Amino acid sequence: MATAQIAPWRSPLARALHYHREPHARYVQLATVSPQGLPHNRTVVFRGFRRDTDTLQFITDRRSGKVQDIRANPYGEVCWYFGKTREQYRIAGELVLIEADNPDRTALWVAISDKARAQFFWATPGAPRQPDTEFLDSWVGLEPPETFCLLLLQPRQVDHLQLRGEPQNRTLYKLEGNHWTVTAVNP
Amino acid sequence: MATAQIAPWRSPLARALHYHREPHARYVQLATVSPQGLPHNRTVVFRGFRRDTDTLQFITDRRSGKVQDIRANPYGEVCWYFGKTREQYRIAGELVLIEADNPDRTALWVAISDKARAQFFWATPGAPRQPDTEFLDSWVGLEPPETFCLLLLQPRQVDHLQLRGEPQNRTLYKLEGNHWTVTAVNP
Repeated sequence: MATAQIAPWRSPLARALHYHREPHARYVQLATVSPQGLPHNRTVVFRGFRRDTDTLQFITDRRSGKVQDIRANPYGEVCWYFGKTREQYRIAGELVLIEADNPDRTALWVAISDKARAQFFWATPGAPRQPDTEFLDSWVGLEPPETFCLLLLQPRQVDHLQLRGEPQNRTLYKLEGNHWTVTAVNP
Repeated sequence: MATAQIAPWRSPLARALHYHREPHARYVQLATVSPQGLPHNRTVVFRGFRRDTDTLQFITDRRSGKVQDIRANPYGEVCWYFGKTREQYRIAGELVLIEADNPDRTALWVAISDKARAQFFWATPGAPRQPDTEFLDSWVGLEPPETFCLLLLQPRQVDHLQLRGEPQNRTLYKLEGNHWTVTAVNP
């Protein structure tokens, strides 16, 4: 969802990313709710913001458990902890799955590694593993398969906690209409 | 909950912890469901297993949002990512809050740092911060205040993903009665 200006939490988040160049600094934990109403949580890789928006991009396999969760309850909260600067972002909002032809989906398919692409041709995730199953280790085709989904998180609330500081600092950002309110809260 | 033997996922998890001695290797992300049915996610610190059980221990402030979530829906899933060994544990089960007098609660209160104890006397977490609020930086008293809760996670399912390997390896552990089943599944 396009907002009038870049959200005020983007600048501190960009600073945290600048201090953490290692690939796993882009690993975040995504919580969803299952059709049975149970919480689920797994690591996903942040794939950048959608152009001209504050929307976070991820990718997922259509056959994964999280897709079932999102179809039943399209909300998620990402928890992002940065070890060197000792700060946490909790980013909550609506999740949108993009499964059909879409230029952003194709662009991400092309951008990921040959090895990452190969996984979308693997046997069904979570199913019992058979000894003779082959797992492709590379794929160069530029047409995304049906299993490849773009997953968008449209933030409505961001809770930023900085453990450094005396005492700690915590800031709550909320999207009201297309305007972000910013409130210093107790840690 | 005591099980007949130590759970089969305890040994690989102990190995991962052995390779990751830094304090933030004990930071995990806990997902819960709010009374409104929305997913929430935040970092909590693993405080060891409850003696003679496979139950994970955490601590929390009774005034925190997660306590409201747990009262409405006593289930949680912890996501634990280990950067050096590139593996993830997803540990799901029932959450139990221990708020009243209890020897394990008292033992954890005594074990945490003076600085960690002080936080339980701070102004209400998440409330707007007032410029004149004082935040105690140390507390040595050995009697836990009412705000201090022991939080237990009794695992029912553990999903262990190892990104290293050809291809990757994923093992699903499920508690059936008091017996853990172990299944190799597709990553």
